[in-house]
Amino acid sequence: MFRSATTTMIRGVRHLSVARPANDKVGFIGLGNMGAHMARNLLKSGKTLSVFDLNQSAVDDLASSGATAAASPAEAADGATTIITMLPSSPHVEAVFTGENGIFETLGTDVLCIDSSTIDPSMSKKVCAMTEERGCDFVDAPVSGGVGGAEAGTLTFMVGGSDAAFNDANEILVHMGANIVHCGDVGTGQAAKICNNMLLAIGMIGASETMNLGVKLGMDPKLLAGILNTSTGRNWATEIYNPCPGVVDGAPAGRGYTGGFGSALMNKDVGLALDAARDAGATIPLGTLSREVYTAMCDAGYAEKDFSSAYEFLQEPNKWSK
Amino acid sequence: MFRSATTTMIRGVRHLSVARPANDKVGFIGLGNMGAHMARNLLKSGKTLSVFDLNQSAVDDLASSGATAAASPAEAADGATTIITMLPSSPHVEAVFTGENGIFETLGTDVLCIDSSTIDPSMSKKVCAMTEERGCDFVDAPVSGGVGGAEAGTLTFMVGGSDAAFNDANEILVHMGANIVHCGDVGTGQAAKICNNMLLAIGMIGASETMNLGVKLGMDPKLLAGILNTSTGRNWATEIYNPCPGVVDGAPAGRGYTGGFGSALMNKDVGLALDAARDAGATIPLGTLSREVYTAMCDAGYAEKDFSSAYEFLQEPNKWSK
Repeated sequence: MFRSATTTMIRGVRHLSVARPANDKVGFIGLGNMGAHMARNLLKSGKTLSVFDLNQSAVDDLASSGATAAASPAEAADGATTIITMLPSSPHVEAVFTGENGIFETLGTDVLCIDSSTIDPSMSKKVCAMTEERGCDFVDAPVSGGVGGAEAGTLTFMVGGSDAAFNDANEILVHMGANIVHCGDVGTGQAAKICNNMLLAIGMIGASETMNLGVKLGMDPKLLAGILNTSTGRNWATEIYNPCPGVVDGAPAGRGYTGGFGSALMNKDVGLALDAARDAGATIPLGTLSREVYTAMCDAGYAEKDFSSAYEFLQEPNKWSK
Repeated sequence: MFRSATTTMIRGVRHLSVARPANDKVGFIGLGNMGAHMARNLLKSGKTLSVFDLNQSAVDDLASSGATAAASPAEAADGATTIITMLPSSPHVEAVFTGENGIFETLGTDVLCIDSSTIDPSMSKKVCAMTEERGCDFVDAPVSGGVGGAEAGTLTFMVGGSDAAFNDANEILVHMGANIVHCGDVGTGQAAKICNNMLLAIGMIGASETMNLGVKLGMDPKLLAGILNTSTGRNWATEIYNPCPGVVDGAPAGRGYTGGFGSALMNKDVGLALDAARDAGATIPLGTLSREVYTAMCDAGYAEKDFSSAYEFLQEPNKWSK
């Protein structure tokens, strides 16, 4: 096995980075809406894949495209040189690595583990430490870009890990994404993701309140959006994804808030921001209130609607009284 | 006096727009940080000005540049074809128009009144109605662009009023601003201003929380800002006016939050948004909390600091516990 010249210090131990071999064998665990597309793009790039998901039909789909079906995370990891996990939450990641029939039962040495799940950065650090104890590398590499980006292979990966591990991960991630960003040490990929999504939630609720207020004060919504977007109030939501129907062509607001990024998913991400802020001792008043708004939206039947439906929710009488 | 061909319906009365005469005589009331620069730019454009302020030295300064010093709003308005007011708050505007020695004591007919104060839109509508009863026109025309924009004559004016009144006002405002936007009927200039500034407050506090959280989670602040600014979390504050020191050259964060737009001024504007939202029945959870944050900042000694000092404030222990 060839080793790259790159060396880096991890926890005081001189750690040699392993250049991924050309005949990289990838264990891929988690074939949901995102993961299935990502795995398929890796197959297209010529990688050998062993795949696992609790949903057997997702495994069968990939197997029919040339992947090897595995019966457990341990089986998918067996003999792999790279392992990719794309799972719903922190407990899933912990279980897939440490649980019965988990990755650690069969993990080799010098294996690169890439976790693309969006989870609490403290869990990323915990799993990283256990992975390194076994002589392997770990990066957290959550994504943005949605299902469309996963299918098109244009995702953004926000990667936390050592320089050497990042360089190795980059060789794999380029087959699934268009933009691979090294955010710092392990956990900072998650930090970047949850920071972005917390501010996105704040910006979307803020845009919803503002558009709603302006319309009630007699303004034309397109004119108001135009003023905001050429002034200091502007944000991504007002410009690209305006929550008021009819302002931005193609935004979910124009199709009853279908498609897009569901409020339940945003609620999960803002919840991770709250957990991380509590652990880090950071004060996030608007983030905290945004979480309350998205939780209230989920309770009121907006869980599956696009997160820009905050505009509609805030017009419902008696749903929000704080 | 020439009349333009433009006619428009106001309150069911057919109202003829008056083209401003070439020898426009302007009564200018309110020579503060903004108003003094605006009046000076009008003088430079060749207008005849009669000016009033409670601060005699501000009046004397303009008089030494060629304006006529007036002893009261009534005296400044006497014989004026256009009246411009630039005052701190709704009660000031009401008093200057309706009070003793106020504008209404000497107001002629066919006079165009332009109020560039940032006030409650309901007060704009009230003063507009009283102005129209006297056979005159009124527009609300609050500004953005700050003291620098006032001095350079590059302000943005957000104008509410009839088409005819807007067209007339535009002829004057172009001497003080670079961007004159017709927002709709009277009051919508204020609506646009307070909507923008409420969302700006939300965006700034949100940016402050997010940068603070990211740094505490181990991210380099410039790297985090770069990720936000190429992703969906971005807003004007993260891009142009980042509240974290060292991220954006020239932002107030880099000079101890001096200069810029004071937290007390932002607190006032968000307060206007709350009043307007209450009157209009609009639900603004993040706007309401942003007002609480800026009020707490003013109470904690941040009133004169730039409004981006929310970043610093949120790091102070025990100052914010909601």
